[in-house]
Amino acid sequence: MRAVILAAGEGRRLRSHFQRPKPLVNLLGLSLIERNILSLRECGIKEFVIITGCYDGEIQEHLGNGEKLGVIIKYLHNADWQLGNGLSAYTFHKEYRQGEKFILMMADHIFELDLFKSFIAGAEEIKEDELLLAADRRLEEVHDLDECTKIKAWENTAIKLGKGLEDFNAVDCGLFIGTGELLEALSRSIAGGAYALTDSVNLMAESGKVKLHFIKNNWVDVDDYESYKHCEKLLLKSLVPPKDGIISRLINRKVSLRITKLLAPTGITPNQITFLSFLTTVASAVAFAMASPLLGGLLAQFASMLDGVDGEIARLKFLKSKFGELFDSILDRYGDFLIVTGMAYSWYAGTGQIAALLVGAAALAGMPMSMLFKEKFRNVFGQPFISEVHDGVMRYFAANRDVRLFIIMLGGIFNILPAALTFLAVIAHLQTFYRLYSVRRLS
Amino acid sequence: MRAVILAAGEGRRLRSHFQRPKPLVNLLGLSLIERNILSLRECGIKEFVIITGCYDGEIQEHLGNGEKLGVIIKYLHNADWQLGNGLSAYTFHKEYRQGEKFILMMADHIFELDLFKSFIAGAEEIKEDELLLAADRRLEEVHDLDECTKIKAWENTAIKLGKGLEDFNAVDCGLFIGTGELLEALSRSIAGGAYALTDSVNLMAESGKVKLHFIKNNWVDVDDYESYKHCEKLLLKSLVPPKDGIISRLINRKVSLRITKLLAPTGITPNQITFLSFLTTVASAVAFAMASPLLGGLLAQFASMLDGVDGEIARLKFLKSKFGELFDSILDRYGDFLIVTGMAYSWYAGTGQIAALLVGAAALAGMPMSMLFKEKFRNVFGQPFISEVHDGVMRYFAANRDVRLFIIMLGGIFNILPAALTFLAVIAHLQTFYRLYSVRRLS
Repeated sequence: MRAVILAAGEGRRLRSHFQRPKPLVNLLGLSLIERNILSLRECGIKEFVIITGCYDGEIQEHLGNGEKLGVIIKYLHNADWQLGNGLSAYTFHKEYRQGEKFILMMADHIFELDLFKSFIAGAEEIKEDELLLAADRRLEEVHDLDECTKIKAWENTAIKLGKGLEDFNAVDCGLFIGTGELLEALSRSIAGGAYALTDSVNLMAESGKVKLHFIKNNWVDVDDYESYKHCEKLLLKSLVPPKDGIISRLINRKVSLRITKLLAPTGITPNQITFLSFLTTVASAVAFAMASPLLGGLLAQFASMLDGVDGEIARLKFLKSKFGELFDSILDRYGDFLIVTGMAYSWYAGTGQIAALLVGAAALAGMPMSMLFKEKFRNVFGQPFISEVHDGVMRYFAANRDVRLFIIMLGGIFNILPAALTFLAVIAHLQTFYRLYSVRRLS
Repeated sequence: MRAVILAAGEGRRLRSHFQRPKPLVNLLGLSLIERNILSLRECGIKEFVIITGCYDGEIQEHLGNGEKLGVIIKYLHNADWQLGNGLSAYTFHKEYRQGEKFILMMADHIFELDLFKSFIAGAEEIKEDELLLAADRRLEEVHDLDECTKIKAWENTAIKLGKGLEDFNAVDCGLFIGTGELLEALSRSIAGGAYALTDSVNLMAESGKVKLHFIKNNWVDVDDYESYKHCEKLLLKSLVPPKDGIISRLINRKVSLRITKLLAPTGITPNQITFLSFLTTVASAVAFAMASPLLGGLLAQFASMLDGVDGEIARLKFLKSKFGELFDSILDRYGDFLIVTGMAYSWYAGTGQIAALLVGAAALAGMPMSMLFKEKFRNVFGQPFISEVHDGVMRYFAANRDVRLFIIMLGGIFNILPAALTFLAVIAHLQTFYRLYSVRRLS
């Protein structure tokens, strides 16, 4: 399936803030139109047709033939863009291939990735002569309702659309899957002097041909500075994975998302951040070894926060890589080993207690066990290890990395390294034994 | 598909050695017929029909309804078993379901699992009125050629079969996939007074209906004590996995296969052996810590050998389990940690050198890295890590467990723990860094 992106308008309201065409406005490291292209690429869309108007040259210069984004981009120019976005959409008829379904969207509407995914999956539901429109009926959650095109819907069919509609139960998200019929409707309504896309959609709605896909994820029409900031907030929030550790969720993400926001516009890569996080663990280990537990603890916790940033940047800027995932896992283990060694060394150097060596060894051995167990489990059983199923009551003491580094921070701040190391060792091994017991019982 | 197993004969020659019916003779912990049933179960066969004759009661008592083997067994009795095995095979017509293809085999022919797998996959090649026969054309490798039924083959079609055939180019392995046509042929040849299975097969061969599947794995017709011992040897040899570590292949398997041979007839489970191997590592660690490096080193190497036995017994007796695989991996890591801790402790207690602690920590950290890397790689890339591709020249220093424990043994025997620990740490981390570099380069 190809995607048609309308990028013909002037976007006056944002222009005053950014001094550049709206589709090219940078939001968290990517221009609006780049984000849409990359999101769709994640859904398997490789060919794009961009309809330009007001800023034809700038947009072509910015995106080129799509090669650096890993897609193919063609451009169509609508010299009469000022007449209305229906005319811009109709420009696509020059490129239309008989019988194809295509995605039609605005360059400046931003959607969460999951929204695109479920919408595109809906393409199969519509017939050859229908139109599928993404609609939001969670009216109280819609940003800037006044500016939206409203929909009067009956079940999943649109009856009428309009900005000024009084009686409505959903709003138009500006995301379509069109067929040849839409181009027909555009042609007819343009011939009748109606140049807005909504005019043609209304024409199709009259014969019940506009089907609605009710979306469940967030989206923003980036129209002014306020909606720009709103979009930024939503995107950052969407970076937190559903299965996040407890310390990560309650503490780390609050800081890591801010760092991500700061770093997103720079060219720093996720792997560089991974390495930076590792260097922070080295610094933490050295601080511990040099008898500065407070600094060591704080650095460990900071490393834990940075450990979230690489993934956030990767998801935000579509830079995820398999190597990156592996690199992150391995460097995390090295970070763990170094910090624990630094702590045990500090304990032993300060007291000469042989217990420091044994507890240190036990903690060192415990640090990789959670990952070892989960990865092996997944390879052997062919499904991910689920803490809720196999960890039983132990999941409240989950020895995940965010928790381990938090314990290390507490140990550093309160200068109770022996207690922290002992606790680390105990929960890591207890968790492993419990998991073995529980897998045996359930399998 | 169902399997028909002929277990009607008297088996005189083995009787003198074992005092029990031949199908029930125990070979490496399983009776011959049990091994065939379990092998076929591994190939997805769940329903069996066993044709009894001479020892009807004993066989039924031994196998029951198949529940304890996880299959369903029905019995048919051929009172005239002495007349010939064709009559026994024909007994199956009482149970035959119109149109079905079925496996037909002798209770006392033992096949490697891979032979069954590729043979059964061949079932689709034959037509409704054909017979598929497993044949071996590697004549020089056939055990006891004199006793075999020979085949004159043209391409993959049998022209003639017979024990006394002068001109032949393959031998009959006694393993068939039959259709209703075989039962017809049996009926006709029995009516003509020819009671051997080979008579009916020859009848079908005359009209070109006997197709041959040329096998590539080993098999034995267990007919006398000599072939019994030969079969034992082949089965043990087949337990060595194709990708075995260098120390494992050159040293460990020579001992582990002997232990497996000893333990197979007992009721000991693979998980119990895993635990025994772990206990041996505990003993090794204690020996090192108590300044008995020679004993520690030898015990470590013995643990490494025992580490092969659990898998061998599991494969040999069809006792593989997912939990067992996980349990083995996790206990191996604990064993590694304990031994290294014991060694580092011994070094430090003897010399007071701080280097002992740091090298010990580095070695401890290095021990799980190989497994961590491989398991994560497999989960991230969706394919197994292949040493030949990603380890480059490092594969000759492969820090796999067999090599690591061998280095530990050498360290113990020559009482050079510092060198052994340093070497362990260096190869483990070097290997990890090299793997990261190489995955990055290739992906």
